[in-house]
Amino acid sequence: MAKQTELAELGEFGLISHLTKSFKNKKKSTVYGIGDDCAVCAKNAKTHTVITTDLLLEGIHFDLTFTPLKHLGYKAVTVNLSDIYAMNAIPEQITVSIGVSAKFSVEALEQLYEGIALACSQYSVDLIGGDTSASITGLTISITAVGTVATQTITYRNTAQCNDLICVTGDLGAAYTGLQIMQREKAVFQQSKGVQPKLEGYEYVIQRYLKPEARKDIIEQLAKHNIVPTAMIDISDGLSSELFHLCSQSKLGCKIFEEKVPINQDTAQAVQEFDIEPIIPALNGGEDYELLFTVPLHLHENITNISDVHIIGTMVDASQSLHMISRSGSPVTLKAQGWNAFD
Amino acid sequence: MAKQTELAELGEFGLISHLTKSFKNKKKSTVYGIGDDCAVCAKNAKTHTVITTDLLLEGIHFDLTFTPLKHLGYKAVTVNLSDIYAMNAIPEQITVSIGVSAKFSVEALEQLYEGIALACSQYSVDLIGGDTSASITGLTISITAVGTVATQTITYRNTAQCNDLICVTGDLGAAYTGLQIMQREKAVFQQSKGVQPKLEGYEYVIQRYLKPEARKDIIEQLAKHNIVPTAMIDISDGLSSELFHLCSQSKLGCKIFEEKVPINQDTAQAVQEFDIEPIIPALNGGEDYELLFTVPLHLHENITNISDVHIIGTMVDASQSLHMISRSGSPVTLKAQGWNAFD
Repeated sequence: MAKQTELAELGEFGLISHLTKSFKNKKKSTVYGIGDDCAVCAKNAKTHTVITTDLLLEGIHFDLTFTPLKHLGYKAVTVNLSDIYAMNAIPEQITVSIGVSAKFSVEALEQLYEGIALACSQYSVDLIGGDTSASITGLTISITAVGTVATQTITYRNTAQCNDLICVTGDLGAAYTGLQIMQREKAVFQQSKGVQPKLEGYEYVIQRYLKPEARKDIIEQLAKHNIVPTAMIDISDGLSSELFHLCSQSKLGCKIFEEKVPINQDTAQAVQEFDIEPIIPALNGGEDYELLFTVPLHLHENITNISDVHIIGTMVDASQSLHMISRSGSPVTLKAQGWNAFD
Repeated sequence: MAKQTELAELGEFGLISHLTKSFKNKKKSTVYGIGDDCAVCAKNAKTHTVITTDLLLEGIHFDLTFTPLKHLGYKAVTVNLSDIYAMNAIPEQITVSIGVSAKFSVEALEQLYEGIALACSQYSVDLIGGDTSASITGLTISITAVGTVATQTITYRNTAQCNDLICVTGDLGAAYTGLQIMQREKAVFQQSKGVQPKLEGYEYVIQRYLKPEARKDIIEQLAKHNIVPTAMIDISDGLSSELFHLCSQSKLGCKIFEEKVPINQDTAQAVQEFDIEPIIPALNGGEDYELLFTVPLHLHENITNISDVHIIGTMVDASQSLHMISRSGSPVTLKAQGWNAFD
């Protein structure tokens, strides 16, 4: 029998690079292919087109027992837009493909599209196409987003410089915590039907999980203050995993400070109910859709003028690897735990 | 209980237009949204970008018991490129997203990507991105293709003119027939394990189903002969369904001749084993990925210089509706039977 290697052996990132390693870009219009938040194509002398696509599958990326379809539609759009903003680009168009079983009603899909429409309006993007198909299994949503960015201000992952400040927007770990709450309440509900889920007090973390926003505001603020980050990535798989991409692609290491990692008080309180230290979901939780970017040291003051941006550390030489100075002052090596969906 | 409308009541095209009717395009860069083979965005003064996306789901669009993964990868790309060519455009880049269960091996996915690589090389397109995800259900493939076309030669569906010649490339109905053969042999194999499927003599129709090509050659020939069709669409849901789109969007009718509809002899022979007249799969079969286009009457001679193009009729006034003159000379009203996947 021919060799059979399990997908989990490679993990998601390993699998992508394994399957695509023999592909070489040949088109003049291809500026940057696989390996960043978006692919980049030449648009005209001063502008690039950026393209990103995400596949959302029922049972893997969402659980319809506790995800309202309108929120799901909204989120399916914003997670793609987050990748566009991570290139310092402005989203312009999306396509939406859905695979849906016949048991769905037209009214259910109307809710999904209400969420899509709300996101389109909120972020000012046009829905320009897609595909609609029957599915014999779960709900499938595939969205592609297209944006534009000036060739002078496009921001990749592989261009961070040593001594750059590492900045994070918003706060981290909330979405993961929100998901834990929803899953706990679902389990309680399934065991004792009729018991109403207890969601009061968890509004913030649940909202962050069910209806995340993309950081359009940050990209606008950066432009307003004439700041072009040296490198940028969106935080979808947890801070550790994104720092790993930023460092390995920029051939650098990083030093961050635990006490500087922004965590909302509601998140900290909720996650401790699960006996988890708040820093853990912040590092490895995923689905935050915040931005992680680097700026030169001399922009320290400028960056503090932008609200909701937190300086958490600096880029260092690759020999120093990726580490976090804990609250007690001791260095902890960061692991790109990420998320191996094939495990 | 709130109203629950079944998806089958609307069908695929009805559902798309119902769900997207309230979306209005607002971006200056959006040239044409939903309703053609591709969406169209402004690239620069002389060029448009065209974008199309297709979702392929296991159990709906392919059956892995008789579809080699390498062919599936190849086909997943070519069906998208066919939509690009249908705008008279040249494909340049694709993104590929896959959702795959852990039971797939790395080696199986390598075969899928070998087919994708072969199509990329054959049609000269770059693979620039995508998404890879676990799936708890079947294999999901979502491809987005991007191309470019001169603003002067882009070809829509809604611009056919009365008296234009209707042209079809290649031959029709073969892919549908190939699928019937594969399904018959699968059923035989399942009933009497060990009986080898009988596929000899059906090579042509099976090849057309498993490994369709997109008509790059026709687009090149049209350009070489300085012919810009007045309207064009690719034949993915059967000739009737595509004529319906062309006529309704161009606000015209059509008259085609049964004897002019190109059907390969192998197709005619094979489909008759199922007691089906060969014209039926040609009209309603689907998955041909040929091109249907219209040209002004005065280009009659020019078009006959392009090999593998067949003139099958003319566009007529809308009052005459869509009809086919049968071999016996009597008019038959065409129905846009298409394919209601939700039935």
